[in-house]
Amino acid sequence: MDEKESVTFINVIELPADEVDTFVEQWRERAKLMRDAPGFQDSRLHRAKLPDARFQLVNVAHWDSTEAWEAATANPAFRSAVRGVSDAVTPNPALYDVVVEYHQP
Amino acid sequence: MDEKESVTFINVIELPADEVDTFVEQWRERAKLMRDAPGFQDSRLHRAKLPDARFQLVNVAHWDSTEAWEAATANPAFRSAVRGVSDAVTPNPALYDVVVEYHQP
Repeated sequence: MDEKESVTFINVIELPADEVDTFVEQWRERAKLMRDAPGFQDSRLHRAKLPDARFQLVNVAHWDSTEAWEAATANPAFRSAVRGVSDAVTPNPALYDVVVEYHQP
Repeated sequence: MDEKESVTFINVIELPADEVDTFVEQWRERAKLMRDAPGFQDSRLHRAKLPDARFQLVNVAHWDSTEAWEAATANPAFRSAVRGVSDAVTPNPALYDVVVEYHQP
């Protein structure tokens, strides 16, 4: 990771195991909208290796600033895409700071 | 991030807001044990910017392999330290694969 200022967006997604494949495909398209927004740095959608993990999907993304992220989420095309998500999906989106960090030297 | 093979460990931690400061300090010490383990790559403890976020703390770490992570968590010193965590804390640890990734070019 470079030294650029950034804010971390994490979305812990709760959904039934049989909805994961469909959600991932929809997410891939929505994330393309975010990727093109000013201030986007990177995004990784993580899928649990085991089907019994409580949180099957976790998205971790980095943006230049809170303002950049807010502007991207306010994009009507993105908001429209989000409305198409199944009612069985409970997202838990929030912005985070890194408070402790260790790296292998 | 380099091209090295890795597995992602994510721990979504549920705890009362007034326990966060204490937990972070204990976590910092436990993570030092992990940092010295073979196969450790990096670890970041994220804290929610807002106190009403459902998940106040999320740890995202990378290891060379599932086996390296399992060996580190089996370390008696680490297991002893984990037993000291407050009963008010609910960890949700799991291993993940990256299924979609986008980067700013």
